[in-house]
Amino acid sequence: MTATRQTVRQAKGDATRQQILDAAERIFAEIGFAAARLDHVAESVGIRRPSILYYFPGKQQLYDEVEADIFASMHAFVLNRTEDVTEPMERLLALLDAWLDFLVSRPTAARIIQRLIADSAAYGNNPVRFSESALQDLEDVVAAGVASGQFHPVSAMVLLNSVAGSALHYVCNAHQLGPSRSYDPADPAQLAQFRSMMHRLARVAVAPQD
Amino acid sequence: MTATRQTVRQAKGDATRQQILDAAERIFAEIGFAAARLDHVAESVGIRRPSILYYFPGKQQLYDEVEADIFASMHAFVLNRTEDVTEPMERLLALLDAWLDFLVSRPTAARIIQRLIADSAAYGNNPVRFSESALQDLEDVVAAGVASGQFHPVSAMVLLNSVAGSALHYVCNAHQLGPSRSYDPADPAQLAQFRSMMHRLARVAVAPQD
Repeated sequence: MTATRQTVRQAKGDATRQQILDAAERIFAEIGFAAARLDHVAESVGIRRPSILYYFPGKQQLYDEVEADIFASMHAFVLNRTEDVTEPMERLLALLDAWLDFLVSRPTAARIIQRLIADSAAYGNNPVRFSESALQDLEDVVAAGVASGQFHPVSAMVLLNSVAGSALHYVCNAHQLGPSRSYDPADPAQLAQFRSMMHRLARVAVAPQD
Repeated sequence: MTATRQTVRQAKGDATRQQILDAAERIFAEIGFAAARLDHVAESVGIRRPSILYYFPGKQQLYDEVEADIFASMHAFVLNRTEDVTEPMERLLALLDAWLDFLVSRPTAARIIQRLIADSAAYGNNPVRFSESALQDLEDVVAAGVASGQFHPVSAMVLLNSVAGSALHYVCNAHQLGPSRSYDPADPAQLAQFRSMMHRLARVAVAPQD
């Protein structure tokens, strides 16, 4: 009986913890870390502020857990999509597709990463505290392609800024360009159009140069 | 004598007003609109908060003037670089180069635009209140290229997200990728490498498709 109760309480606690994380991710995405208040998160979940502090010591720790989960989930998503792909070009496209699909399905993650890029002082000396796995994923794919001789020795960071990062703008800009230019990034035709462009650009970016 | 005094006072007032705008642009770029306080701006200029309110009614108006100036300056920079260029592909590259050079020379503008893309609720129903001129510049160049038959009928907004927006990531990511991947976006060799990639991608993005 006691054991059952404890399990129920535990499950309820876990559910609340997850609700807090989900609400925090939405709010950090919408207004950013600096402007977000724990009160907003509490109100969104329908609990009181002290209840959040039962699960998280403060706003920074709550934010850190949100960002850590975004990059851990994105990395897992990439591994799943690329583990059976060995041909270098196919592997690069699988990585880019994984990032694109991940960000389209989780636009709050796109906004948080977009903000992270703008925040020049994030994490002081360690701006890649959580994003390192993503950068490493891209560097590994590029290094393998270059080693195989199929890719021009392109800089992974140039590729990041020029091709890979475009998925962020595709997702974040959906409703930022005025009513007449609004689009739904998850719309299949829209997504296919953008993906096709991303693939063309990726192929050219790593192709042997004249 | 009175006239001279008034001119001096006027000039001093204009200088202070410009100092406030410069400081505000730095602070809005670094920490964003929501987190920025007029106290920070005042401290940075070396004046007291009420002195700012003498020139600007409040934080929103100060921010609006900063953002308006960014897009007006960028538009003027584009006009200057493109007015004598008529060949469609050269015109597109001149536009992209103008954006890239403008953002490299004014990284605070890049950070503010990067934040604007993340801020889903900016300006309510009119997110393009200030950025409309930039979108229109790109649309005009793309439309002319398509009309000439030299460009594939590509969506200007797909081009914006996939190629044009990359200049923002190039500038903003300079010190966001960890110490081992840091770079100076204004370094000539670095900039030439990125520009060359951007040109290649732009050519392919509008090229007739198979």
